[in-house]
Amino acid sequence: MSTDRCFAKGSAAPGPVPKDHIRLYSMRFCPFAQRTRLVLNAKGIKHDTININLKEKPEWFFEKNPLGLVPALETPAGEVIYESPITCDYLDEVYPEKKLLPASPYGKAQQKMMLEHFSKVIPYFYKIQTGRGKGEDVSGLEAELKEKFVKLNEDLVKKKTKFFGGDSITMIDYMMWPFFERLEILELKNPLEDTPELKKWTERMLQDPAVKSTINSADTYKAFYKTVAAGKPDYDFGL
Amino acid sequence: MSTDRCFAKGSAAPGPVPKDHIRLYSMRFCPFAQRTRLVLNAKGIKHDTININLKEKPEWFFEKNPLGLVPALETPAGEVIYESPITCDYLDEVYPEKKLLPASPYGKAQQKMMLEHFSKVIPYFYKIQTGRGKGEDVSGLEAELKEKFVKLNEDLVKKKTKFFGGDSITMIDYMMWPFFERLEILELKNPLEDTPELKKWTERMLQDPAVKSTINSADTYKAFYKTVAAGKPDYDFGL
Repeated sequence: MSTDRCFAKGSAAPGPVPKDHIRLYSMRFCPFAQRTRLVLNAKGIKHDTININLKEKPEWFFEKNPLGLVPALETPAGEVIYESPITCDYLDEVYPEKKLLPASPYGKAQQKMMLEHFSKVIPYFYKIQTGRGKGEDVSGLEAELKEKFVKLNEDLVKKKTKFFGGDSITMIDYMMWPFFERLEILELKNPLEDTPELKKWTERMLQDPAVKSTINSADTYKAFYKTVAAGKPDYDFGL
Repeated sequence: MSTDRCFAKGSAAPGPVPKDHIRLYSMRFCPFAQRTRLVLNAKGIKHDTININLKEKPEWFFEKNPLGLVPALETPAGEVIYESPITCDYLDEVYPEKKLLPASPYGKAQQKMMLEHFSKVIPYFYKIQTGRGKGEDVSGLEAELKEKFVKLNEDLVKKKTKFFGGDSITMIDYMMWPFFERLEILELKNPLEDTPELKKWTERMLQDPAVKSTINSADTYKAFYKTVAAGKPDYDFGL
């Protein structure tokens, strides 16, 4: 049995977190958990991963995180950290190798402001996907999402940088990436045709080792979300 | 003319930010802007304040903050920071006197998790106020808000501390306070009667010098929100 298989209701709790590790509670296809996985990978942090069945959550998981959400981190001391940006900031602060957030307070504030802007883009990914699944007209939502992409493109043009925080990858890129990785499942027509700099950003991101090590194919997402739409999410799809 | 009077559409932009100051764009009755005012006060940071007419916003303000929202900070270098928790974290990092966030990464993560929980309480303050204003039945919302208070009370009981981050005031207390300061305008019946520790927390907060220097009376809020409900917010009320 692969250790990637998810823990569900009725499962025995996993053992304690090894002394020199940190543990991630995750779900293999969750974009928010992928943020934390990207940071763990980019920084080369020793960790183990416990995947959670989000439909039939293990009873013991609520003792770790009362909200029952992934991602969550657990330290050998039993400290639990949840909410994806909080987990990522924590990792960046505790593990000094390859800092992903700028050192300056204003640089950090800029990253947080970009994340705040991007938090208003995320709902479109969900609304378009579920709306289309129900056979609704999502053309208005599609147009609004494309406008958001135009804004992001302008941001890159104005900054004249390869990534959103400069010419190398920083935290904000990893916070945004998981949603672009899943763009194909929205079935938009040429979603990035009017936003060439944003398109180049996605191409650059695809070359990043942390992205490469956490990526799933569009086919995998399509197959997984088909099981979600059918009301029987297959969290172990492909294992 | 008092410098507290708000700047509206058509107003001339204020001069540059003095070299040893930071500038706050605010609105005298805004709970989010009060978070930043509390931190500026608690840390004794030299600042000037420009109040904004949020209904008829000055054209020049959008050049500072494209979202047109308060609070926003501006430095002498022209850097602009917005979103209340981002402004507060920025101030705490730049001005080392009287640190409001813990030094440890886990301590910081705990504050952010508490803030995330509290962000789900805030909408009740708005929904109850506007619902009651429209003559709607808000008893369900009232019961839900009281449940949230019970959770906050339990949190203090479990921690056995005087404030939410320990036995002295930390950032999370200032993030939460402005909403409790406005509790009376919701016209709940004995809102804190079942939550004695939370009630004690509000009494302790009222003794804090930063709270004392930014507080408004319930009568002032009631009078101001009456002008809001009438569609003519009097941002200069009481000046």
